[in-house]
Amino acid sequence: MRLRTATTSDGISEQDFSLDDVPGVLWSPAGATGPRPLILLGHGGGQHKRGPGLVNRARRLVARCGFAAASIDMPGSGDRPRPPGEDRFWDEVRTRRAQGEAVADQVAEHFGELAARAVPDWKAVLDALTGLEAAGAGGPVGYWGVSLGTMIGVPLAAAEPRIEASVFGLAGPGYRGALAGAAAQLRIPVEFLLQWDDELIPRDDALALFAAFGSPDKTLHANPGRHHDVPEFELDNSERFLTRHLGS
Amino acid sequence: MRLRTATTSDGISEQDFSLDDVPGVLWSPAGATGPRPLILLGHGGGQHKRGPGLVNRARRLVARCGFAAASIDMPGSGDRPRPPGEDRFWDEVRTRRAQGEAVADQVAEHFGELAARAVPDWKAVLDALTGLEAAGAGGPVGYWGVSLGTMIGVPLAAAEPRIEASVFGLAGPGYRGALAGAAAQLRIPVEFLLQWDDELIPRDDALALFAAFGSPDKTLHANPGRHHDVPEFELDNSERFLTRHLGS
Repeated sequence: MRLRTATTSDGISEQDFSLDDVPGVLWSPAGATGPRPLILLGHGGGQHKRGPGLVNRARRLVARCGFAAASIDMPGSGDRPRPPGEDRFWDEVRTRRAQGEAVADQVAEHFGELAARAVPDWKAVLDALTGLEAAGAGGPVGYWGVSLGTMIGVPLAAAEPRIEASVFGLAGPGYRGALAGAAAQLRIPVEFLLQWDDELIPRDDALALFAAFGSPDKTLHANPGRHHDVPEFELDNSERFLTRHLGS
Repeated sequence: MRLRTATTSDGISEQDFSLDDVPGVLWSPAGATGPRPLILLGHGGGQHKRGPGLVNRARRLVARCGFAAASIDMPGSGDRPRPPGEDRFWDEVRTRRAQGEAVADQVAEHFGELAARAVPDWKAVLDALTGLEAAGAGGPVGYWGVSLGTMIGVPLAAAEPRIEASVFGLAGPGYRGALAGAAAQLRIPVEFLLQWDDELIPRDDALALFAAFGSPDKTLHANPGRHHDVPEFELDNSERFLTRHLGS
């Protein structure tokens, strides 16, 4: 893994890294040593490793909880090459939608394939980060990701026993129920965010994914508003949830 | 209003009161003066003003938030006379249920009548408490009550503009949708608790009541488990919710 020089502002160290063709960012309390929780941050669709919402969450986790945090670009996002056919795929989706055709299945299948490619990326990055002081020095690992971050995060958590607690949300059961199937395998504590007036995820779909989690300790937080309107106070809740399960 | 002598333990003052035929309890930080939030605590069915769960909540609100808290016996509960016909009503419900008949409507109607009698009780008590040092000295007022406490609390909050924020839950739309109708009138912040495996309130009924609230700021917390299994960490959440909206 290639680590670039860290920069520090407001007591928060920020450091780019790359592992093969996967670029990422690492945040941690400046000068921190010893084990602390590491939160993997999964970005949403159309976003990247340093989207504004994600950076805000990362810096809060460091400043308020003393955690480390890491994000990577999903395949085709941020600094990663856009796969051939990606633009054609979305053009076709737009055309079919304009003709009034249902595209939900097609999009869900596409994101399912993306998740299948992203899970080994995250696992390799986690291997490379483990033990680094700036990545929590072997402390417990959590995950925070909604929407696309959940479509990738749920199969990741099912495949990765190092993840001990996770915040998910804004997603349904997935293509042919694949996401619900992965969710059913989980036993870790889960906090699930649902937007009551989500224009992208039908309410019953989100409730069905929450219902599918096999975790005995799971909690659903639903708030009014559309897909991108998750209220700021849910960040407080996420931080308390992760602190409760991973320690401070 | 008749106030009995306060007793104090662990820095918490506890004081019985009665207003006409309504007996109640008041909790506050010992020796506190000046305005502080007052939380009205509505007890559940088969409970009373000093049920163990309620006393725990009251003492936590005082010790952890510095709030005052008050509870009263609902009509027919605790130290209040059981109305004539009450035992006969429940015997009939049991008989009909044993014969496999649906009793949900009958029970909901009964609780609706109870709520209609309890609302004026709470309003009169709130009038009498207002300005008392041991009742928050005119500070903002909130409400916490689930199950029967919600069946009474929702119409109370709709009728009582002094209530500025409320925790509700474990209830459906009520007899002929009466509770949903009152909920639609509310504009105050609401936190709503739902038990995913509630054996008394069908999940869709609880979701329908949450949907009915007219409050722009409302949030749903759902957790696995049966009616009486609301997890302890939701008390933390309630305290943060009430602190956020009523001040510390």
